[in-house]
Amino acid sequence: MASPTVKLNSGYDMPLVGFGLWKVNNDTCADQVYHAIKEGYRLFDGACDYGNEVEAGQGIARAIKDGLVQRSDLFIVSKLWNSFHDGPQVEPICRKQLADWGIDYFDLYIVHFPIALKYVDPAIRYPPGWKSASDELEFSPASIQETWTAMESLVDKGLARSIGISNFSAQLVMDLLRYARIRPATLQIEHHPYLTQTRLVDFAQKQGLTVTAYSSFGPLSFLELDVRDAVSTPPLFEHEVVRKVAQRCGRTPAQVLLRWATQRGVAVIPKSNDPQRLRQNLDVTGWDLEEGEVQAIAALDQGLRFNDPIGYGLDIPIF
Amino acid sequence: MASPTVKLNSGYDMPLVGFGLWKVNNDTCADQVYHAIKEGYRLFDGACDYGNEVEAGQGIARAIKDGLVQRSDLFIVSKLWNSFHDGPQVEPICRKQLADWGIDYFDLYIVHFPIALKYVDPAIRYPPGWKSASDELEFSPASIQETWTAMESLVDKGLARSIGISNFSAQLVMDLLRYARIRPATLQIEHHPYLTQTRLVDFAQKQGLTVTAYSSFGPLSFLELDVRDAVSTPPLFEHEVVRKVAQRCGRTPAQVLLRWATQRGVAVIPKSNDPQRLRQNLDVTGWDLEEGEVQAIAALDQGLRFNDPIGYGLDIPIF
Repeated sequence: MASPTVKLNSGYDMPLVGFGLWKVNNDTCADQVYHAIKEGYRLFDGACDYGNEVEAGQGIARAIKDGLVQRSDLFIVSKLWNSFHDGPQVEPICRKQLADWGIDYFDLYIVHFPIALKYVDPAIRYPPGWKSASDELEFSPASIQETWTAMESLVDKGLARSIGISNFSAQLVMDLLRYARIRPATLQIEHHPYLTQTRLVDFAQKQGLTVTAYSSFGPLSFLELDVRDAVSTPPLFEHEVVRKVAQRCGRTPAQVLLRWATQRGVAVIPKSNDPQRLRQNLDVTGWDLEEGEVQAIAALDQGLRFNDPIGYGLDIPIF
Repeated sequence: MASPTVKLNSGYDMPLVGFGLWKVNNDTCADQVYHAIKEGYRLFDGACDYGNEVEAGQGIARAIKDGLVQRSDLFIVSKLWNSFHDGPQVEPICRKQLADWGIDYFDLYIVHFPIALKYVDPAIRYPPGWKSASDELEFSPASIQETWTAMESLVDKGLARSIGISNFSAQLVMDLLRYARIRPATLQIEHHPYLTQTRLVDFAQKQGLTVTAYSSFGPLSFLELDVRDAVSTPPLFEHEVVRKVAQRCGRTPAQVLLRWATQRGVAVIPKSNDPQRLRQNLDVTGWDLEEGEVQAIAALDQGLRFNDPIGYGLDIPIF
């Protein structure tokens, strides 16, 4: 089965359900991508920072070689890392990332965080992570407008068909919309029942930006990172409200959480190593939660954010 | 008695305690300003939007004429309203506001909100409020950088000695700091025990911006505006934690709330119609809360914001 698509403001169609590459291991990545394609996944959400773009590209190349898909069937997403916000660095790093994937355009290229870090030469360390060449947290003076203008020229040059933003809050989105020549096609944010961000989602959708949710399963993604709140918060899969809805629908809790997003037009990018769950995660459209169920899940909101630089010990209070 | 001052990053000294002109009635404003000066107030925090700059200026002129103070003893603050964010509109409106006050420079001129509304000619409606000339909520495409560049030129021309921002969130402050030629001297935000904004305050202070708190008494300021949460939230003056500290210190709850801010270097701008409270509000330095008391008051935080365009029925989700 394949995912339905949503029409972006750039005119391109984006699958509503994709496969997220964050924390996918290098040694299994190519296989996971290959099998995901086999299962019907067409969108792959990668990033420089995930450190597995070469392997993801290998999985895609194999799938194309084996005739499972053509490049044009796929929707490949990547992200500009913080260390490459300086205007002149955007195109070179995008080209390097394209070369890593072995493709010549991204369907969507996203500003990963509204954080400009000092440039790190890929020859020194790649992906660079949060620290500079001298291993400190150092910032760049590149404004979001400088970075965005360079992102726009990627579209002009055909290196990215659509461009987007991630982890931006409302005030910064508003400001960007005031000067953007090409509006962001998508806003990717942490989004799950413990962090619904209703105002931001509504605002973005009204402005014609498609919202993509990451970490749809809430704390689960952050357990292995030892994020404090993630360890102490009840898992959503076991939450009574979610389980009750799952029971009523005859679906898994994971499917309920994903459908809770897609039913309101929010795209999702789960990942799984398990073939059965991989299939189930894709099957999260075409059946509905009742309106009361959508509300009951939304009412679990606690403003609980897990993916926060502060939580990783970085003094960058963006949230 | 006079307030101690804090050294701004612009090199100027700003009183830590001032008199806020929001919701000061036109018919009493001149007298209130005059009497506040008599009581020792030197900072007056006004704004186009408060609609009483002419009267505030009259009170000041009378105080100067009577020999109570000289202009140079005063620290006069005003704000750029949302309708004047377009670069070319900044200087003309600042000059109009200076003329209203009857002065030739502001000590501090602040971008009131990170919201750019369509220009309204002062001849049509002044202060313009939130609606355009055709009485709709209409936006301007002026970016914050465009507005800030115009603010900087006010400093160059001597119309404002320092410039600042208000109601900005962290991501937007970070972005502004990346391109600002003249850094904001102050960040004015809603700040009280129900909305401590600790991260934002710490970040701004580390960056050398002086934080000014408005609505230090929490819901109290919003009762007359019928803001829903304000009516249903326990008044801070009657809160057990605040009362206990007040009792221990031999001070009023209002003084405790103001000292809770100033003790951490946060400037305050209360207002009062009552001569005794006017005096008391100024006496909020030079004595200390215990560290445990500061913490206990901070622990009342609920992220409860009262001054929010959404709460006024305006579809502008800046928070």
